[in-house]
Amino acid sequence: MKDLIGGPGTVSGLLLRIGQSVFAAASIVAMVTSVGFYRYTAFCFLIASMGLQVLWSFGLACLDIYALRKKRDLQNPVLVSLFVVGDWVTATLSLAASCASAGMVVLFVQDIGYCKRGYIHSCRGLQISVGLGFITWSLIAMSSHVMFWMLASV
Amino acid sequence: MKDLIGGPGTVSGLLLRIGQSVFAAASIVAMVTSVGFYRYTAFCFLIASMGLQVLWSFGLACLDIYALRKKRDLQNPVLVSLFVVGDWVTATLSLAASCASAGMVVLFVQDIGYCKRGYIHSCRGLQISVGLGFITWSLIAMSSHVMFWMLASV
Repeated sequence: MKDLIGGPGTVSGLLLRIGQSVFAAASIVAMVTSVGFYRYTAFCFLIASMGLQVLWSFGLACLDIYALRKKRDLQNPVLVSLFVVGDWVTATLSLAASCASAGMVVLFVQDIGYCKRGYIHSCRGLQISVGLGFITWSLIAMSSHVMFWMLASV
Repeated sequence: MKDLIGGPGTVSGLLLRIGQSVFAAASIVAMVTSVGFYRYTAFCFLIASMGLQVLWSFGLACLDIYALRKKRDLQNPVLVSLFVVGDWVTATLSLAASCASAGMVVLFVQDIGYCKRGYIHSCRGLQISVGLGFITWSLIAMSSHVMFWMLASV
């Protein structure tokens, strides 16, 4: 199995996982502190998918730390297959939730002008949360592609 | 390069491309026939991304027909790299546009009840269009994974 930047059990892989966890957690915090987010399904979906992302990425970060400290090799086909499936599912959910929320934010800010008219008070928080969601997705997309490449190149 | 189901220049690949073009075109038709869709950015984005999908998939379907009739081999690394990039971009855009539109439809149908109250008259058309967008995405995701696997397994 080729040794790639961002692969499991490498320092770059660990940094990617930590980045995903931190940005996903920040996205949840920004959303939860926005007033009245719970009235809208897409924003709740963003919190749920970012929560799943934190669990998955933090779990794999711990596994990476264990592998780096004990010098264990995580790059076997069975484990990488598991990482591929998990990364693909979480990446797709992160993109889906970020896009659904982005569609709503554009609606509120631009299309029907709820933000300008003051119907929604925490538009800035919603925008930041969606932005952090997209950053999380870009990091998990990187991990996902590295894992898929490793599995395919066995 | 491994010969895979759904690869370029194969009958299954051609069927996938035709499916993508047909569902993307149907999604555009369902959206365009919905009253007042142009007021909402996410619905316009869905039309734009489905339009790009039709162009890309129809172009590759024509290339597949040419390759099948002339018995040409399209499975070389340079061409497949091009297909990987194009498929990935169009798949990501299709998912993003479908999710943004789905978030809006859920908002109208459930969260703020615009459909029930009759503020929007063509909710059924919007729902069908978004559904067809998701079917298109699932087909382009299949093509995208097959291409990526072929490129990685060179």
